[in-house]
Amino acid sequence: MGSLSFEKDFEPSVVTPRGLIANGDFGEMKRLKVATPTTPRKNLNVAVTEPGSRNDGPSLDCILMNYIDTLSQRINYHIGYPVNICYEHYASLAPLLQFHLNNCGDPFLQNTVDFHSEDFEVAVLNWFADLWEIEKDQYWGYVTNGGTEGNLHGILVGRELLPTGILYASKDSHYSVAKAAMMYRMDFEMINTSVHGEMDYSDLKARLLQNKGKPAIINVTIGTTFKGAVDDLDIILQTLKDCGYTYDQFYIHCDAALNGLIIPFIKNMISFKKPIGSVTISGHKFLGCPMPCGIQITRKSYISHLSTKIEYIASVDATISGSRNGLAPIFLWYSLCMKGRAGLQQDAKICNENARYLKGRLHKAGISAMLNESSIIVVFERPNDPKFIRHWQLSCTRDMAHVVVMPGITRETIDSFFNDLMQEREKWYQVGTTLPPCLADDIGSQNCLCSYQKMRH
Amino acid sequence: MGSLSFEKDFEPSVVTPRGLIANGDFGEMKRLKVATPTTPRKNLNVAVTEPGSRNDGPSLDCILMNYIDTLSQRINYHIGYPVNICYEHYASLAPLLQFHLNNCGDPFLQNTVDFHSEDFEVAVLNWFADLWEIEKDQYWGYVTNGGTEGNLHGILVGRELLPTGILYASKDSHYSVAKAAMMYRMDFEMINTSVHGEMDYSDLKARLLQNKGKPAIINVTIGTTFKGAVDDLDIILQTLKDCGYTYDQFYIHCDAALNGLIIPFIKNMISFKKPIGSVTISGHKFLGCPMPCGIQITRKSYISHLSTKIEYIASVDATISGSRNGLAPIFLWYSLCMKGRAGLQQDAKICNENARYLKGRLHKAGISAMLNESSIIVVFERPNDPKFIRHWQLSCTRDMAHVVVMPGITRETIDSFFNDLMQEREKWYQVGTTLPPCLADDIGSQNCLCSYQKMRH
Repeated sequence: MGSLSFEKDFEPSVVTPRGLIANGDFGEMKRLKVATPTTPRKNLNVAVTEPGSRNDGPSLDCILMNYIDTLSQRINYHIGYPVNICYEHYASLAPLLQFHLNNCGDPFLQNTVDFHSEDFEVAVLNWFADLWEIEKDQYWGYVTNGGTEGNLHGILVGRELLPTGILYASKDSHYSVAKAAMMYRMDFEMINTSVHGEMDYSDLKARLLQNKGKPAIINVTIGTTFKGAVDDLDIILQTLKDCGYTYDQFYIHCDAALNGLIIPFIKNMISFKKPIGSVTISGHKFLGCPMPCGIQITRKSYISHLSTKIEYIASVDATISGSRNGLAPIFLWYSLCMKGRAGLQQDAKICNENARYLKGRLHKAGISAMLNESSIIVVFERPNDPKFIRHWQLSCTRDMAHVVVMPGITRETIDSFFNDLMQEREKWYQVGTTLPPCLADDIGSQNCLCSYQKMRH
Repeated sequence: MGSLSFEKDFEPSVVTPRGLIANGDFGEMKRLKVATPTTPRKNLNVAVTEPGSRNDGPSLDCILMNYIDTLSQRINYHIGYPVNICYEHYASLAPLLQFHLNNCGDPFLQNTVDFHSEDFEVAVLNWFADLWEIEKDQYWGYVTNGGTEGNLHGILVGRELLPTGILYASKDSHYSVAKAAMMYRMDFEMINTSVHGEMDYSDLKARLLQNKGKPAIINVTIGTTFKGAVDDLDIILQTLKDCGYTYDQFYIHCDAALNGLIIPFIKNMISFKKPIGSVTISGHKFLGCPMPCGIQITRKSYISHLSTKIEYIASVDATISGSRNGLAPIFLWYSLCMKGRAGLQQDAKICNENARYLKGRLHKAGISAMLNESSIIVVFERPNDPKFIRHWQLSCTRDMAHVVVMPGITRETIDSFFNDLMQEREKWYQVGTTLPPCLADDIGSQNCLCSYQKMRH
């Protein structure tokens, strides 16, 4: 497929309710012909009006019912993002919504009020501390508002310990890492990645040697957002040693947002027995929670630099967000108790198998696809129709799309997606003048099955 | 009352379930004799265990029921923090908990998935944009995870516009402002305050003149956490002008966390018609929401410095938190629709009257107390018993305590608190050797009714 000029061929896919247009600012989207998607977002009439003035329109509860109805219909078409979209335990937890629960201050210190859930928060933290092999009296942590806050906190702990440190992260790291460098005014070295999305350790080594005079703060990604690649913590530690960095000259933050609950059951590499500083994971991803949240764990001795006594709340604050959502820890606690390690291990196994199944079907059908070891993200050729992309709520980058095979995504859903793709694909490429994209540079020539690659092999 | 030595007289008030001790690190608490509170926090047995291994203990649902029961019993004793503790609309909104709703990327751009609430988010933002007098096409904003995130965002917008700018904030500002200065590596000037908690404008002027060569980023507090004082935006703008700062040499962030929904109905000073950069407000305070959240509004033209295209989510990110809680905007939207401006105005009026009522009763009884104009925070002498403080969930600083007369705090609750205070107070000060503290330096001699002051008058 030839590259289309934006001005001529781009039609806005959807005009938002506010009249703003998704205007092709989004990377490669402009390379594709865009038509109205099959499932346009409903233009919800939700402007806030004074009570009594909605006489002509639907009631608030009616608007909510319709909204919930739409969401219910779309559950089986959400396969592009690493979110556990359904939360099955909601009925037990719904009564909590009648209160405002606020976990402010240090979760390990006595709160001055009753309307918090810090007992649950600490129970969840203890579970993760155990998983990541750090003693209860050695760690500090809190339940965050998501993976971004975990990264912001971990990198800040590193910067406060090593104020002149340079931040190193691979170019496939989550976008919050570059944001942290900007916010914190840190020097930032972006490290190359392999075609599979893993950090290029030789590039890391070269830069570590080049910057030898300054401490290193390294963000290690345990599951990149797009390719699900895992940076090898052990190789990174070896590289630091090889370059002559002693323990007091580096800080390692592990961003385990997605794979933090997969890796421990496949190839456990995250452990505070190694010289790492912090680990963060998202709570709403593999585990599941109705709202974004995460867990951040660091060494207790490291947070004194950040802790500030706040007399107003009679506590100490070492968090980013201050007042924290008190519901999230209870939701996480409930999920952890219901699943347990065994249940999570089983989830990881099933998701891994289902991901292999999807990749197998794609390869058999001659479609370029890649699946990293211990990953649940299947990367494949970007579908040639934004309607299709929107229908399956896929995430795309350059010529790639991906499916994240989360818990809850069944073989039936995978088959349904695969069959739809095959059917549509026939239309996209039937004329013969348009060919599927070559993904050799994106996912490696061994995973690319485009015509050019086929001819080469 | 004489100052007691910590070592001799302090007994830990409560040992937390984790065995850590609230150890007197908390400001002036150590000056008071501490005994076991009447309402100790229940030591919840909530450690995460594997499914099936809880045979001896209570079920998860039983633990939750007990927890909810305890919270229900404590609702009428939560008068010390600015939180709308009950959320009455929860039944209508509870079904939303079955999904994970994630507002990632720019709320004004089309989302690539269905599981978000950005229509509701924009509806809420539009309502506040209208309140603060900025046109829909001129503003940008988002629903944050709370007042802290709003301050972090507003100050970051200011720093990116004026990279060499010095941050100015009064010493009564929220603790997140000093945190922002630390995170963002900004020079920080802490300005004195009057005895009422308001910024000392002559001190501001002196420092502005001293730092003339560098731009000013000013945090204006519209309702300080402890005294409910309002920094006068107009005087600050005039001071900047008097000191020769032109519009391109300053940035003003308004932290209206609590009073942002009171001030507009009493003495409206927040308006984007004035040269301000951003306004933030907490959603869970005056309005009410089961989880911490807030609204951040800035000028659209200001955020280009912060916006980063993120292909992965096919959007633009200019937020702090990235993935945002999709439930909060719906809860805020529901509250706004149910109350409307008229309802909020009524709430502000009632709270203000009830605060005056409490202050009046305290003064009549000879108890030192202060209430700022247009504030709902009654500051008074710190009760001489931590049990009492814990029972009423009061916030204390130095020799002061305060009651925040939020919506939902009725005259009955106020009377019940007042009567309890009078009864207990008789015991504390009956011997005659212990006297109530002098608050002249804390709340002004006209508000202090201690014996020394009485003798002077």
